[in-house]
Amino acid sequence: MVAPRVYQAMQQNVVGHLDPFFFEVAEEIRTLLGYVFSTANQRNLAISGTGSSGMEAAVANFTEPGTKFALLSNGFFADRIGEMARRHGAQVARLTKNWGEPFDAQEAREFIRRERPQLVALVQAETSTGMYNQAKPVCEAAHEVDALVIADCVTSLGGMPVMVDENGVDIAYSCTQKGLGCPPGLAPVTVSPRAVERLRQRKTTVESWYLDLELLDTYYTGHKYHHTACATLFYALREGLAMVADEGRECRWQRHLANHLAFVAGIEGMGLRMHVAQDHRLWTLNTPRVPDSVDDAKLRQYLLDRRGIEIAGGFGPLAGKILRIGLMGYGSTIDNVMLLLEALEDGLRQQGYRPPASGVAAAQAAQRPR
Amino acid sequence: MVAPRVYQAMQQNVVGHLDPFFFEVAEEIRTLLGYVFSTANQRNLAISGTGSSGMEAAVANFTEPGTKFALLSNGFFADRIGEMARRHGAQVARLTKNWGEPFDAQEAREFIRRERPQLVALVQAETSTGMYNQAKPVCEAAHEVDALVIADCVTSLGGMPVMVDENGVDIAYSCTQKGLGCPPGLAPVTVSPRAVERLRQRKTTVESWYLDLELLDTYYTGHKYHHTACATLFYALREGLAMVADEGRECRWQRHLANHLAFVAGIEGMGLRMHVAQDHRLWTLNTPRVPDSVDDAKLRQYLLDRRGIEIAGGFGPLAGKILRIGLMGYGSTIDNVMLLLEALEDGLRQQGYRPPASGVAAAQAAQRPR
Repeated sequence: MVAPRVYQAMQQNVVGHLDPFFFEVAEEIRTLLGYVFSTANQRNLAISGTGSSGMEAAVANFTEPGTKFALLSNGFFADRIGEMARRHGAQVARLTKNWGEPFDAQEAREFIRRERPQLVALVQAETSTGMYNQAKPVCEAAHEVDALVIADCVTSLGGMPVMVDENGVDIAYSCTQKGLGCPPGLAPVTVSPRAVERLRQRKTTVESWYLDLELLDTYYTGHKYHHTACATLFYALREGLAMVADEGRECRWQRHLANHLAFVAGIEGMGLRMHVAQDHRLWTLNTPRVPDSVDDAKLRQYLLDRRGIEIAGGFGPLAGKILRIGLMGYGSTIDNVMLLLEALEDGLRQQGYRPPASGVAAAQAAQRPR
Repeated sequence: MVAPRVYQAMQQNVVGHLDPFFFEVAEEIRTLLGYVFSTANQRNLAISGTGSSGMEAAVANFTEPGTKFALLSNGFFADRIGEMARRHGAQVARLTKNWGEPFDAQEAREFIRRERPQLVALVQAETSTGMYNQAKPVCEAAHEVDALVIADCVTSLGGMPVMVDENGVDIAYSCTQKGLGCPPGLAPVTVSPRAVERLRQRKTTVESWYLDLELLDTYYTGHKYHHTACATLFYALREGLAMVADEGRECRWQRHLANHLAFVAGIEGMGLRMHVAQDHRLWTLNTPRVPDSVDDAKLRQYLLDRRGIEIAGGFGPLAGKILRIGLMGYGSTIDNVMLLLEALEDGLRQQGYRPPASGVAAAQAAQRPR
């Protein structure tokens, strides 16, 4: 859901990509991205493409032909990073878990010490499974062998702690349409000073001119023409980030956590199980398992047709097995939790599933101060 | 300038990137792009990036390591294509003219016959110089040697004839913020059946996952997730294209031509010369030469500060020598012509230049039926 304040901001007149006002907006975005990513990095920018363009920028700028690339994969988006790395000429080594299964910190460390890569990538917030992967042990091991770490924060930024500096992430990217409550179209990126240094030591030119981070820096901080950025999307992003600052990032995380916990209580109250183990779950994207007797496609179609609620299904190895239910950004409210639980209960009953108790009542009970 | 109808269209609610309504909009865009590009191609789409991402998509999808790439260069954007081709591993051969000087058709043919490239690129509408390059002789020669032709139509689409099929262009790309009167952010692209066939014969994967035209086709026509396209920008583009269809593309070209001719009459009436020779000029972007006695930066600053009019200067070899004055899309009106001429005259006088006659009067005289 796009926040009304963001819709409002998008009605401002379009100005040119070299207009002083545009650069004012871009500069505020740079500062606010530091706050939202929890980093002192100065190289924060928004790429003129969607979250996947941020992923490709991260991969393309730090990969040269033959770069040793270590990938921690336990979901779809990790595999996408691996595919991009392959295309850009990296040698990819993988530590693989089932979709939604956590990495063991010690195993991850050993993998990195063994592979001695130049680049390590992980998905902090795996949109395909609802899983939050811990970046810190990975970053520590990577830095021991002088590797940089890329973290995909597409579904964490603005909804839960990303903690770029505390974790030691070198390159993080995200999108605008999830925790930030904007339309899609830009990819927020932050780059550590160590990673900037690595860019300058490249032996080959980055293959992608459009995503070349050094060229983008001459545009956003040097004010030298590179491409024609979309003022409207920058207005939206500035507003979305300002809303995080207004609420306070910690309060915002707390809101997402509280609504997530209420939702999980409701799901479990209805006798469903969460796919991801406790303490490894995203607060922004909830993935209950579909009861065996229920056809998830029919359930989702019913909710869309009869209740106007669009929830996503699982795919790949999780096709038909989980639901993916977003409660993020402007959409993470207790009212939405209750609405969803009530609609889900209705949909499940239509599919012949009889919940042992009311999801709404369980969520309400979880809400009460203890 | 963004058309009011487009601003209005952008206020529609953001829907998901797999929403049936989104695909309806994308399908209308596909059809309307065929009309605006003047092509029967079915592979028409909007890339989720700016015009330069369209350029990189064209280069990246049709270049493999070692591809022989023939470039016709007489301006900044042709050089940018060459830089992208180099990054993507092409061997680039160039036929070079001074910025704003036309190619001789026979010379271009001989260049292509001699080089026997797999790919030829030219800039139909060179934004750096105000020049329109004829694509037809280039395409004919290219097809003789079985090469594909890429044409940059960033400043022609929606403002003057692009004529993809009549010229024989295989891959054309453009932007949304010029002749189409939308905000920037998408890159309309059209691909001929012959070029689609070439995609399928590639020996290597396209380096750019984000710009991979085959993957994009599985999204826009196969409705299979690739990236999260921005509904707002699609609403804008659909409206901008619908406005071209409402006006009629030929009427729209005629409007641009008439306003261009009136503007040129005014410029010449004030004793200035156009940089590009007659019959080679863009109707969308006018490039008068700056009189020797005038400081173009001061002139442009005066117009911005005192009149709220932003015009661009020359750059590269044309820095300080030309003005680049857009009259395109929604902004191409006779009122804007007169406003610009009057403001320019004022600005030139401030810089000590005394026009021999009134630009506005000359433009008005040119407007009278003969």
